[in-house]
Amino acid sequence: MKKFLDNDFLLNNDVAVKLYRDYAQNMPIIDYHCHLDPKEIAQNKKFETITEAWLGGDHYKWRLMRACGVEEKYITGSADDKDKFFKWAGIMPKLIGNPIYQWAHMELRKYFGYDGVLCPDTAQEVWDVCNSKLKSMGAQDFITESNVKVICTTDDPIDSLEYHDAIRQEDLGFQVLPTWRPDKILNIDSDGFSDYLTKLADVCQMDITDIDTLKKALKLRMNHFASMGCVISDHSLAFVMYQPADSATINDILNKKIQGDCLTDLEILQYKTSIMMFLAKEYYDRNWTMQLHYGVMRNNNSKMFDLVGVDGGFDCICDPAPLDSLAKFLDALSSDDTLPKTILYSLYGEDNTAIDTLIGCFQEGEALGKIQHGAAWWFNDNKDGIINHMKSLASQGVLGNFIGMLTDSRSFLSYTRHEYFRRILCNFLGEMVEQGEYPQDYKALGSIVQDICFGNANRYLGFNL
Amino acid sequence: MKKFLDNDFLLNNDVAVKLYRDYAQNMPIIDYHCHLDPKEIAQNKKFETITEAWLGGDHYKWRLMRACGVEEKYITGSADDKDKFFKWAGIMPKLIGNPIYQWAHMELRKYFGYDGVLCPDTAQEVWDVCNSKLKSMGAQDFITESNVKVICTTDDPIDSLEYHDAIRQEDLGFQVLPTWRPDKILNIDSDGFSDYLTKLADVCQMDITDIDTLKKALKLRMNHFASMGCVISDHSLAFVMYQPADSATINDILNKKIQGDCLTDLEILQYKTSIMMFLAKEYYDRNWTMQLHYGVMRNNNSKMFDLVGVDGGFDCICDPAPLDSLAKFLDALSSDDTLPKTILYSLYGEDNTAIDTLIGCFQEGEALGKIQHGAAWWFNDNKDGIINHMKSLASQGVLGNFIGMLTDSRSFLSYTRHEYFRRILCNFLGEMVEQGEYPQDYKALGSIVQDICFGNANRYLGFNL
Amino acid sequence: MKKFLDNDFLLNNDVAVKLYRDYAQNMPIIDYHCHLDPKEIAQNKKFETITEAWLGGDHYKWRLMRACGVEEKYITGSADDKDKFFKWAGIMPKLIGNPIYQWAHMELRKYFGYDGVLCPDTAQEVWDVCNSKLKSMGAQDFITESNVKVICTTDDPIDSLEYHDAIRQEDLGFQVLPTWRPDKILNIDSDGFSDYLTKLADVCQMDITDIDTLKKALKLRMNHFASMGCVISDHSLAFVMYQPADSATINDILNKKIQGDCLTDLEILQYKTSIMMFLAKEYYDRNWTMQLHYGVMRNNNSKMFDLVGVDGGFDCICDPAPLDSLAKFLDALSSDDTLPKTILYSLYGEDNTAIDTLIGCFQEGEALGKIQHGAAWWFNDNKDGIINHMKSLASQGVLGNFIGMLTDSRSFLSYTRHEYFRRILCNFLGEMVEQGEYPQDYKALGSIVQDICFGNANRYLGFNL
Repeated sequence: MKKFLDNDFLLNNDVAVKLYRDYAQNMPIIDYHCHLDPKEIAQNKKFETITEAWLGGDHYKWRLMRACGVEEKYITGSADDKDKFFKWAGIMPKLIGNPIYQWAHMELRKYFGYDGVLCPDTAQEVWDVCNSKLKSMGAQDFITESNVKVICTTDDPIDSLEYHDAIRQEDLGFQVLPTWRPDKILNIDSDGFSDYLTKLADVCQMDITDIDTLKKALKLRMNHFASMGCVISDHSLAFVMYQPADSATINDILNKKIQGDCLTDLEILQYKTSIMMFLAKEYYDRNWTMQLHYGVMRNNNSKMFDLVGVDGGFDCICDPAPLDSLAKFLDALSSDDTLPKTILYSLYGEDNTAIDTLIGCFQEGEALGKIQHGAAWWFNDNKDGIINHMKSLASQGVLGNFIGMLTDSRSFLSYTRHEYFRRILCNFLGEMVEQGEYPQDYKALGSIVQDICFGNANRYLGFNL
Repeated sequence: MKKFLDNDFLLNNDVAVKLYRDYAQNMPIIDYHCHLDPKEIAQNKKFETITEAWLGGDHYKWRLMRACGVEEKYITGSADDKDKFFKWAGIMPKLIGNPIYQWAHMELRKYFGYDGVLCPDTAQEVWDVCNSKLKSMGAQDFITESNVKVICTTDDPIDSLEYHDAIRQEDLGFQVLPTWRPDKILNIDSDGFSDYLTKLADVCQMDITDIDTLKKALKLRMNHFASMGCVISDHSLAFVMYQPADSATINDILNKKIQGDCLTDLEILQYKTSIMMFLAKEYYDRNWTMQLHYGVMRNNNSKMFDLVGVDGGFDCICDPAPLDSLAKFLDALSSDDTLPKTILYSLYGEDNTAIDTLIGCFQEGEALGKIQHGAAWWFNDNKDGIINHMKSLASQGVLGNFIGMLTDSRSFLSYTRHEYFRRILCNFLGEMVEQGEYPQDYKALGSIVQDICFGNANRYLGFNL
Repeated sequence: MKKFLDNDFLLNNDVAVKLYRDYAQNMPIIDYHCHLDPKEIAQNKKFETITEAWLGGDHYKWRLMRACGVEEKYITGSADDKDKFFKWAGIMPKLIGNPIYQWAHMELRKYFGYDGVLCPDTAQEVWDVCNSKLKSMGAQDFITESNVKVICTTDDPIDSLEYHDAIRQEDLGFQVLPTWRPDKILNIDSDGFSDYLTKLADVCQMDITDIDTLKKALKLRMNHFASMGCVISDHSLAFVMYQPADSATINDILNKKIQGDCLTDLEILQYKTSIMMFLAKEYYDRNWTMQLHYGVMRNNNSKMFDLVGVDGGFDCICDPAPLDSLAKFLDALSSDDTLPKTILYSLYGEDNTAIDTLIGCFQEGEALGKIQHGAAWWFNDNKDGIINHMKSLASQGVLGNFIGMLTDSRSFLSYTRHEYFRRILCNFLGEMVEQGEYPQDYKALGSIVQDICFGNANRYLGFNL
C-alpha cells in the first residue's frame, strides 16, 4: 500500500515510474491555455493569505463548500479570510475521490513544503505555514518554480495587452503571450453587443458600420495581438454551428442589430457561422491555432447569479452538441483550404470517441495531428476523465501526436495539474507495456512522453524552444 | 484467487476489507425507495415456494429467461412453480456477469443458508432447502433479519394507507412509511385521467372542477400521507419538463380535459410543469424530499404487453433526456425559494457526469447535498453502474454527502443489494487509499462509510434514528 | 512484466490462460460479416507485396498515416509500394494503444513468422520477410491457416454471385456464402436510384413499374441468394427509422421518384420504412438473420472524397440515433409476427447499455438471444470497446448467448482479430472468476467460451457444423 501522495503517486508499475522520473518530470511546461491575469504576472502579485490564493476565484472549491452546507458568506461573501479557510478545511475529509482534494495537497507539498493532511485538526498549522511562505513568493515565483516556459492568457480583442508588452520587455525566463478570444463579437444575441461594437471601433479609431468595416477592425486587432506574440485563438461556444449565408445576408443581419432590431435564431446562427468562417481563414493565414471550447450550459442558478455573477460555480455540462454541424464547419473550411490548426474541447466527455473519429477525417498537411482533441476539460479534468480521453485518442488516432496538458486555471498554484497529468500519462503508457501491448522500448516510450509533455505543443504552436 | 462469493466478495484490498467489516456491514438499512406491498408486510405474508418469492414479480429474471428461449408459460404463465424454478435453474450457468446471478446466490446464502451453486444439477436441492425454510419465514422476518429500520413504499394519492396505519400500531422494530407518488394526476395525457380525477374527488369527499379544487384535493391527501409519516415523494417521468404557463391557461387545459377534448403536446407539458411546480412547493413547505425518476421507455413490446401487462419486463432506457429543461425547472423553483430536497435518478447512465455538474449548481442551505444524484438505478444497478455513479459523484461533488443505496425492489429478498452496494463502496474507497489518493485515516474513512450506508439518509430524511 | 505480444498476451490471470488454451484458441472461425471479395477467394489471389496486402484497402491505416503528416501520395497515391511501406513503418512507434499496432504485429507473427517489432529500423527486414512469404501464399491459404469454416461476404442484390457459385463447386474446406445487402434499393434519396432500378429490372428480366413489381424483383433475387446459401442480410443505415404509411402512399412515392420528381424527407422515411418492413418479413419467412449497422456519418471531407472516393477513411461516428424509432420498428415487426432474428450494430458505443435493455424487450422463441447486440463495431473494435460491449451485455442480458466476433474486414490477414477478441473474452471471464463473482467451474466456463467463439453463431445461423 502506498502512502498518501508518495513519490510514486499515480505511478502503479515500474515502467510508469521510470517514464515519469527519466522523461516526464523535468520537462518544461507550455501552458497554452489559462485564465491568469497578465497584470498580476507583470506586477508579481503577492497574496496576503492562502485564502486569497486558493479560494479567491476558484469556483471548483466554492461548489464543494456549497454542497457541504457552508454559508455563502464564507465562500464568496464578506467573512474574513481565516474563517473562510477554516470552513474549507472543515469539508476536506469528505472530498475523497475529488481531484481538488489531491490538487490541494500537491500544492501544499510543492509550493509550501507541507507534507501533512489538511483537515480541521491541521487547519491552523496549514494557515500559518502557507501565509508565512506567501510573504516571500509572488506570482512570478510560482511560475518559475514550476518550470513554465510559456503562458498563453485569454484576452479580449479590445484589450490593450499593455501587461503582455511590459512582460516582453523583461527577461523573466518565461513568455506570457495573449490569446485572441473574440466571444463578444460572436455573441450578436447578447445585450452588450452594440456597446462592444462601439468600444471596438474606438480602440481601432475607425467607424464600424457594416460587415466589411467590422472585419477590417478585427484584422487590425489581430495584427496587434500578433505583434505581441499571439499564436492561438479561443472560442467559447454553446456548440459549433454551421449555417452558411451569403455576405449580403450577413451584412443585413449586422445592420438589423446595429439599428436595434431583434434577430431570429436563424439569423444569429448565420451571423456566427459567417464570423467563424472569416476568423478561421484569418487564423489559417496567420498560422494561428483555433481553439473551440463548447458544451457548457452557463449560469443555471439565477438567484446565485444575481448574487455572485459569472464564473461563480453555477455552470454545468449541457446536452450533447450536434456533431454534424461541427463536421460541416470543418469540411467547409477544408474545402476552402482555410482550415487552421484546430483544437476541439467538448465538455460532454461521453463524445470522446465520436470526436476522435471526426478529427481523423480532417488530418492533413505537415503538422502532426493538425486537428487535435484537447485535453480533458474542466469537469473532466480528473483521473478518470484524463484516462478516458487518452484511451480514446490512442484507440482512434495517434496518441504520440497529442499536444498534452494545459491548466485552464485562474490560479498561480495550478501547475501541479501538469504533474498530475504527467503521472497519469506515464502510468497509462506503463500499463500497456506491462501488459505486453507495446514493447519495453524506452527510446520510443521516452520520446512519446517528452513529446506529449512538451515537444508536441512546442512544435505545434511554433515556439521552437 | 477467491472462492465464489467468499467473505471478501468484491473486497479486493485490505482497506476495503477493514472498512466493510468494521464500519459497513453492521449498519442498519434505510430502504427509502422500494415497491414492496405494505399489505404483505402487515399480514406477514408467507411464500409457498421459492418460485413465488423469487420469480413472482421479478421482471429482471423474466427477461433473462426469455432471452434463453424459455417459453412464456414457464415465466409468467400457467406452468407450476416447480417447473418454473427448474427452467430458471437451467439458465443460471449462462448468466456470468449479470448482477442477478450474484444477487440470487447472495440471497441463497443469507436467507436460506445454502452455500452451493444453483444450476440444473442442484435445482432439486435448492428447491427443497428454500421451500423448507420458507415455511418458517414471513415478510417481516426477511425485513428484521436484514436489519432494516425504515421502509418507504410507493403509494398512490388515493390509497387509504390502511396497512401503513396497521403497521404503525404494532412494534415491529422497523417503520413502514408511505411515499407520495402522484403519477396519475400528472398524466393528463392518459386515458384513465378523468376516471382517476373522479376517484380522487370521492376519496376527498369533494368536487374537483378546476385547478384550485384539484390542488385542494391533493393537499388533503398530502396531509393524510403526512399523518402516516410520509417524508418523501416520487415521480416517474419520461423526462423533467419545463414549460411554464399562467394559472388561467392551466385551468383552461384542465377544463378541456374534463370536458373530453383533446390536448396539444404543448398543453400537456404546460399542465405537467404547473402541477410539478405546485407539488414541489408543497414538498418544500412540508420538508418532504422530491424524487424524480426519469428516462424510461415503457411497454415497448405491444404483443407481450397485451399478454403480460405493465412491469412485465418490456421497458428499456430511452434517448437521453434534455438537461436544459431539468436545469430550468430547478432554477424556477430555486428562484421562488421553493426548491425542496431533491433526488434525481436518470436511467441513461452516460449522463452521470452531466447530472453531477448540474446538481452542483443548486446546492444550498444546511442540508448536506440538498440536491442528490440517486444511486445507480434499475438497469444501472450492477457493479459497473454503481462504480461509475460513485466515480462521477466523487469527481464532480462530495461523495461523503451521498445518501446511498435503496433496493427499488418488489421482493423481500432484495436487501442483499445493500450488502452488494456496501461492498462495492468499501472497495472503491479502499482502492483510493491503497493507491495513495487518500490518507489511511480510518476515522475519516469510517465516518464516510457509515454516513453513506446509513447516517446521511437518516439525517437527510429527518429520521433521527 | 510481460514481453510484447507474448503467449499470454491480454490474458492476465490463470483462469483466463486456461480458458484460452483449453477452450478458445482451437475453435474454428465463422466470420459471418466481412467485406472480402469472393473473386479474390475463388481465384486464390496472390499479393505482390505486403503493401498491397496491408495498405491496399485499409482506411484504418490510411487515417493514422494522415494524422502523422504523411503525404497522400504515400497513402492512396502513386508512390511505389516500398516507399509506402516505409512511410507506414515510420509512424508505427507512435501508435501506442491503437489496435492497429497490435493487430499488425499479430499478423506478422501468425502469417509471416516474424517476431520482431516493426519500426523504421526493421522496415527493410519486415519488407523482405513478408514479400518472400507472400510468394507462396494465396487468399485461400490465409483462410485455411486461420481455421475459418464459413465466410459471409457482403453483396449487392444484382450481383451474379458467380464466384460464390464457383467456390461451392470446389472443396476448399470452408464455405463462402453471400450476404444480402440491399442498400441501393433503400436509398431512394440517392442520385443513382433510378439507374439501379433499371439494372435490377434487367437482372430479373422483368419490368419494375411500381411497388409490387419492385417487391417481386427483390424476391427473385433473394431466391437466387438463397440458392447460393445466403442466410443473412445486412443494412447500412444512418439510423433505424419508423415512419409507416399505407401501400398506396408508398406506391405514389416510388412513382414520383421514377418520374424524376423530388421527394420530401417524410416520403423518403416512409418509403424506407416500408421496404424495411417488407424485407424483414421476407427474412423472417426465409429464416434469414437481419443485420442493422447504423450510426455512421460518411464522407465528411469533401475535398478528400473527391480525391479518394468512398471508404477512404473519412467517415466517423454520428450523433446518437433515436432509440424510439428503433423500438417502434421492432415492435411493429413483433406485432405482425414477422420479426426475424436480428443483430444490431450501433457505432455510437455509449448507447451499449440502452441497446442491451431494448433488445431485452424483444427476446422470444426458441433462438437463444434472438435479438443480438453485435460485437463492438469499427471504431469500437478495440480492447476497451470490446470489454465495454461485453460488460453491458453481461449486465443487461445473457452473455452466454452472444454470437461473438466477426472481422468486418476487407483484408485476408484480419482473422487475428478473432484471436484478439477471444483473448479479451477469456480475460474478461477469468477476472470474474478470480474475483469470486462466478464459480471456478470449467465445464460451465468452457461451454460459454466455446459457444461465444463458435457454437452460438453456428446454431444461430443454422450452419450445423
